[in-house]
Amino acid sequence: MITKPTLLVDEKKCRENIQKMVEKAKRNDVTLRAHVKTHQSLSVGKWLKEAGIEKITVSSLEMAKYFSKEWDDITVAFPVNILEINTINFLASCIQLNLLVENRETIDFLNKHVEHTLGFFIKIDIGYHRTGILPNNFQLIDEILHETSSNDKLKFLGFIGHAGHSYKSNSITEIERIHNESIAQILPLKEKYHVEYPELIISVGDTPTCSVVEDFSMVDEIRPGNFVFYDLTQAQIGSNHLDQIAVAMACPIVAIHPEKNEIIMYGGGVHFAKDAYQDPKLGTIYGKVVEKTATGWGNTIDGIYVKSLSQEHGIISVSTELINNYKIGDILYILPVHACLTADCHQTYQLLDNTVISRFVY
Amino acid sequence: MITKPTLLVDEKKCRENIQKMVEKAKRNDVTLRAHVKTHQSLSVGKWLKEAGIEKITVSSLEMAKYFSKEWDDITVAFPVNILEINTINFLASCIQLNLLVENRETIDFLNKHVEHTLGFFIKIDIGYHRTGILPNNFQLIDEILHETSSNDKLKFLGFIGHAGHSYKSNSITEIERIHNESIAQILPLKEKYHVEYPELIISVGDTPTCSVVEDFSMVDEIRPGNFVFYDLTQAQIGSNHLDQIAVAMACPIVAIHPEKNEIIMYGGGVHFAKDAYQDPKLGTIYGKVVEKTATGWGNTIDGIYVKSLSQEHGIISVSTELINNYKIGDILYILPVHACLTADCHQTYQLLDNTVISRFVY
Repeated sequence: MITKPTLLVDEKKCRENIQKMVEKAKRNDVTLRAHVKTHQSLSVGKWLKEAGIEKITVSSLEMAKYFSKEWDDITVAFPVNILEINTINFLASCIQLNLLVENRETIDFLNKHVEHTLGFFIKIDIGYHRTGILPNNFQLIDEILHETSSNDKLKFLGFIGHAGHSYKSNSITEIERIHNESIAQILPLKEKYHVEYPELIISVGDTPTCSVVEDFSMVDEIRPGNFVFYDLTQAQIGSNHLDQIAVAMACPIVAIHPEKNEIIMYGGGVHFAKDAYQDPKLGTIYGKVVEKTATGWGNTIDGIYVKSLSQEHGIISVSTELINNYKIGDILYILPVHACLTADCHQTYQLLDNTVISRFVY
Repeated sequence: MITKPTLLVDEKKCRENIQKMVEKAKRNDVTLRAHVKTHQSLSVGKWLKEAGIEKITVSSLEMAKYFSKEWDDITVAFPVNILEINTINFLASCIQLNLLVENRETIDFLNKHVEHTLGFFIKIDIGYHRTGILPNNFQLIDEILHETSSNDKLKFLGFIGHAGHSYKSNSITEIERIHNESIAQILPLKEKYHVEYPELIISVGDTPTCSVVEDFSMVDEIRPGNFVFYDLTQAQIGSNHLDQIAVAMACPIVAIHPEKNEIIMYGGGVHFAKDAYQDPKLGTIYGKVVEKTATGWGNTIDGIYVKSLSQEHGIISVSTELINNYKIGDILYILPVHACLTADCHQTYQLLDNTVISRFVY
């Protein structure tokens, strides 16, 4: 029985989302190196494995350590933190560990301190402008490659990019445009370097582009992560339909205020995280309430949504027509705005058959 | 040695912040029932105890359970979640448990299901308009009191309010105004009900009002929480000086981009939470970088601040003059925007002598 804010996971929807992406990867003959930072769970990882996925992406070395219990080929899609060299050496001694390098200082450090063979990608800024080397900075790329050419423990794997600006798209057309532009930034590097490094690969692919774009045949690897769960943000930009969202927060109602058309639920920023989005009709919203069904949840309900969040309280806006449908002690099911950060608030998730699964904890 | 994003706690500053509030409470002859939801830690709780604090406030029944190992008088400052009746009965059997009631349904439920004596406050909306009973809704107050009058397990303690809108003040004057207005809402209830309930108390007091206002003599209890740590939001509205902030995030630098005046740190939304504030000069900011000193940290540094956060990355804006002071592998110390939510991202905190302390985990 649910008594507190709980993250529900619909395993069937997750497996469908995974299967769809696996099939797209197969059609394109690209490797699907799923990013696991959204769910951070070995249990969900098993569903990836059962769908034929053999390699994963994580966002921290600690997360790599957790997943290394069951996965032997892991890319840490985050610029190397040289202070964690002990973890790097430990992981490189037991699995195929792949790191991201984007500057001289880091590669110099790795050159001196790496004790076991590991792979590295050169991180390219393909338009998101968060981090990475500009795709025309051949001097720095050459320096990095030169630096490592005589170290057989540091194996150059290829070029990696993340078009994170696709998350801020407002249409499928824009996602496609971002994809085309970002691919056009990184592909020439393969042409330029593949003679010297015939096995180098190009790795791209966030959830929006991987969900929307059909043709990935020009790259070698894609790394979407959010697609296993999806969320309202992804639905809004066109990555998924609402019925593909595989997670919902279950939150008890603790107060009802008909005079201001509001319900107070037990469920706040510490359970949802604080990401919001601008709904064209409703303004800033923090979640949408869905119908409860015998087997999980159904459609979103018009006229009721999460209006704001404080630490433990969530304020639900509810129409006069609907408010009498709810009573204190009822559980609301709510689709989250950003599944990655909502999942990160929980140490365990609950499947619809009430099984509790756990995740990596920092 | 710090190698990953770590929440540092300056014990000396915490104890000074606690001592200052204890003295204010003494001067006013009010009970300081400190809210512990900011730090959520029994270790920090010991500093409260050593300063003479005997009663605490928490924000969930689970948190009450954790603190009940060392505290025997706990108010759960959140509307009762009737689904957790088992936890309520368990706690009421071992400590003085105080709950917040604000509707008939909940009090009816407690009336039927409570097995051990507990106290309850009637939660009044004193202007924040998040939840609570309007102070002139005597009918509902009377119904609640009537409902419980023949149940000796449900002991009416008084009226409780939270002026949470003080967090959105923009000056000390405004905090004082909010305090005066909110007190004026709740005080008449004491006059009206004290004949029948001579021991009833009035409990108010958030961190902004408790930090700024001198005169609390007209109420019986205050419940600030954030004051132990303080943060940039509180500093901006005038609750504290920057040098009173007792927590800082320590985050490694993983990339430096002089061409765009940015540094990438290992430290993102999963380490800071996503609360931001509007700095009059800098716009939206997610943290301020401070000088590192031999014993902790010093002043904030002009020209360097946290510009944005994604899941694990933090983007630091840094001036051309400063950027050469930093190198990959350095640790930045950063004051958080909202200490409650930043602390909530961490299972452990590190004191300045490197001692690791733990906190309640959901």
